[in-house]
Amino acid sequence: MKWDDLAQEPCSVARTVAVIGDRWTLMVLRDCFLGVRRFEDFQARLGISRTITAERLKRLVDEGVLRKVRYQDNPLRFEYRLTDKGHDLYPVIMAVVSFGDRHYAGPEGQPGAGPPLLHRHKTCGCDFHPVMTCSECHAPLVARDVETRAGPGARAAA
Amino acid sequence: MKWDDLAQEPCSVARTVAVIGDRWTLMVLRDCFLGVRRFEDFQARLGISRTITAERLKRLVDEGVLRKVRYQDNPLRFEYRLTDKGHDLYPVIMAVVSFGDRHYAGPEGQPGAGPPLLHRHKTCGCDFHPVMTCSECHAPLVARDVETRAGPGARAAA
Repeated sequence: MKWDDLAQEPCSVARTVAVIGDRWTLMVLRDCFLGVRRFEDFQARLGISRTITAERLKRLVDEGVLRKVRYQDNPLRFEYRLTDKGHDLYPVIMAVVSFGDRHYAGPEGQPGAGPPLLHRHKTCGCDFHPVMTCSECHAPLVARDVETRAGPGARAAA
Repeated sequence: MKWDDLAQEPCSVARTVAVIGDRWTLMVLRDCFLGVRRFEDFQARLGISRTITAERLKRLVDEGVLRKVRYQDNPLRFEYRLTDKGHDLYPVIMAVVSFGDRHYAGPEGQPGAGPPLLHRHKTCGCDFHPVMTCSECHAPLVARDVETRAGPGARAAA
């Protein structure tokens, strides 16, 4: 299979990965959620070429994840903001952050170890980590408690 | 910046993306959570070469996300199973599934539209979607309610 075929697969992972499964794209999205909006800032923070930066931002705009907003008229300048669809990627980025904090941050208390960023939930005032839960019973989800079956978008049997 | 430098960055997204941010790797992980364990099955389902399949599986074993388990002696055969660390990637995969179901599955009721897979939580018996919540107050997380600050693993100011 080639990558361009992936978006055609009846699989929600495949379709999403075809859009965001590029490594720089995930880093651009991380920066979006940290409040970065300007081309030069994305480029400087990631240390990548203008070409790669422009291509990744354009892709995200084309997909409706970011929108380009004029913030200055003379000279004309644009910034990139998350759309509602883009905000729906927050659980993806936070799940990645949480995994990294758990497995790649090293033991706290040592120099340079522990989570590089702390997240505070303004609603309750506490530092937190994200917990993925069931929409129905609100219990934390673990894979062994979940079973799957074909849904309405499954490919029909031949 | 080059990709090999990413894992050195004091960012949990960068470190995780350096391991799993490859598109085929995400597809291999999807299949692991669907119960796929054997080399030939990964290869056949993804339609990729033996070389790509072997390289991605080896990487995940090297990272401790999968372990190689002998299931037959004559001839010798191995299968790949998620480790505890691998199971910690379930929220990442489910967040990707959920985004795809929401934005790329199309309207239900049309042929080939709607979620390709339905997920049932055996604990409560209901079909569900995943909800990312705060570990402290258990409310669903949205980006605008979260603020970040440097943690113990942040790079020290020069």
